Amino acid sequence: MPTAAPLSDRLLNGDRRALARAISLVENDDPEGWALVREVYPKTGRANVVGITGAPGAGKSTLVGAMTKLRREAGRTVGVLSIDPSSPFTHGAILGDRIRLTDHFLDQGVFIRSMANRGALGGLSEATLQAALLMDAAGRDDIFLETVGVGQAEVDIIDHADTVLLVLNPGGGDSIQALKAGIMEIPDVICINKADHPLTDTMVREIRGVLSLAPSGGWPVPIIRAEAVRGEGVAELLDKLDEHRAYIEQEGTLSERRRRNLRNEILALAVARMRRELESRLEDDPEFLRLVEEVGERRLDPASAAAELLARELAADS
Amino acid sequence: MPTAAPLSDRLLNGDRRALARAISLVENDDPEGWALVREVYPKTGRANVVGITGAPGAGKSTLVGAMTKLRREAGRTVGVLSIDPSSPFTHGAILGDRIRLTDHFLDQGVFIRSMANRGALGGLSEATLQAALLMDAAGRDDIFLETVGVGQAEVDIIDHADTVLLVLNPGGGDSIQALKAGIMEIPDVICINKADHPLTDTMVREIRGVLSLAPSGGWPVPIIRAEAVRGEGVAELLDKLDEHRAYIEQEGTLSERRRRNLRNEILALAVARMRRELESRLEDDPEFLRLVEEVGERRLDPASAAAELLARELAADS
Repeated sequence: MPTAAPLSDRLLNGDRRALARAISLVENDDPEGWALVREVYPKTGRANVVGITGAPGAGKSTLVGAMTKLRREAGRTVGVLSIDPSSPFTHGAILGDRIRLTDHFLDQGVFIRSMANRGALGGLSEATLQAALLMDAAGRDDIFLETVGVGQAEVDIIDHADTVLLVLNPGGGDSIQALKAGIMEIPDVICINKADHPLTDTMVREIRGVLSLAPSGGWPVPIIRAEAVRGEGVAELLDKLDEHRAYIEQEGTLSERRRRNLRNEILALAVARMRRELESRLEDDPEFLRLVEEVGERRLDPASAAAELLARELAADS
Repeated sequence: MPTAAPLSDRLLNGDRRALARAISLVENDDPEGWALVREVYPKTGRANVVGITGAPGAGKSTLVGAMTKLRREAGRTVGVLSIDPSSPFTHGAILGDRIRLTDHFLDQGVFIRSMANRGALGGLSEATLQAALLMDAAGRDDIFLETVGVGQAEVDIIDHADTVLLVLNPGGGDSIQALKAGIMEIPDVICINKADHPLTDTMVREIRGVLSLAPSGGWPVPIIRAEAVRGEGVAELLDKLDEHRAYIEQEGTLSERRRRNLRNEILALAVARMRRELESRLEDDPEFLRLVEEVGERRLDPASAAAELLARELAADS
């Protein structure tokens, strides 16, 4: 009976159900999930990880669907991680274009998973990294991490990628502004989706203007026009993503980039754990409630309350 | 000689130079700055704090300038804190509309300060809260916290406000999408700036649609059309901001909101400190470098490395 085999073996053999179960374990912060990642970690590092970012509605999922189709035609296996932003009033899961990925639901070579932001601080980024590692261990050739590229949590997620793709639309000016203002990091490849629009040329010019302000030298950021719905421009986009990957491998920046990301990931994991432990300890802590009360009554300032809290925590640890 | 008086006295008397110096102290994380906040904290809590958020280019600064003008005409003093996103390649400070605030530079009743994101994790939000408290202590009647409303850091900043104003433009669809997807929290007041645009009515309908999905009851989020450049709609906007403030005061939610924010602020300050201490200790730590190396070589997984790091830290503390 194959299901009697350990989860790690089945995962390493590329079993889809094992992969699904493994990701649920890390998403639920189950110790078994962490143990599993620990076990299979030596087998990771082979997948090509592409982060796809852009405003909601830019057509990221459609584009991921089109890229997945071409990768499958080339005989490669694909893993997709969609990071769904949580909603304070609809509890996520309203991005209608998610549905378009269902074209691939029956294909064994495609594994699709949505990760929901449960509002855990740092938790989603943590779980996403682990899920990506599990997909990697399960032998997926290409991993697409799809997220809205706005907040720090999303930036942390995108940092797990070897290549970052920003998807823009000729209509939405906010992203360009964000790029211009430096809120959004310069991606490796830019795709203008829904390029069948009169404002596309203007947008390309605008982007070129923004990019010209960036430090020159190194990889020249390509701007690809696509119509993901009709599959246009997608092959060219994949070529550019591959070129970027080859470029950083050749220049030695891939391992440098991964080293830097790993350093940040270890730190982020450590801080997230510290924060989680602190919060769970303080949940109904009468001493903490007293501190909040005092700060509310202006008898103690917030920074002093934080310092008092830390001092107490350190004393409790020793 | 007035400058011989302690900084705290001059600050509490509303001295602008004392306020500027005090904010620099907290921005530079100078212990004197923290001591000062501690000292003047009992005198805070009187200012009306409005958070202004929206995509870059939405015209937030122009709107803040127009609101400042009306507040001054009503005899109130104003403090403005502009949170400048850092840029990876231009080091912030390219938001051209910042300049428009200079109309008020010579007015003693207006104090304007830009806070730059130095990339410190959690540091900007921390410093912004302290700066707002200092403005409050210096007797500013109205404090405007202006920031781009995209990331977690900005959300943390906006959480210091009693009333949150979201500024949108008829052109930029990204913000509406972000609101729809629940990435952006529902604000207290929405202003459509540059409302002299054929798409304004469509946008109002779209926003109403999004708001109708939110839990009903409580404060009905008003949508105000404005032309900040010409000062149109600004008086109405201020009325709505005042109404919201009166509403939460009357319903008792102001103190509840402040209590909740204080709780989060104390936690965030504690975590930011922990993180900073951890990072400074690890800067050139050979043991940490070894861990990163091992993770890079796939001999150790990131989560185990983080756990090892924490265990070592706790051992060192005790």
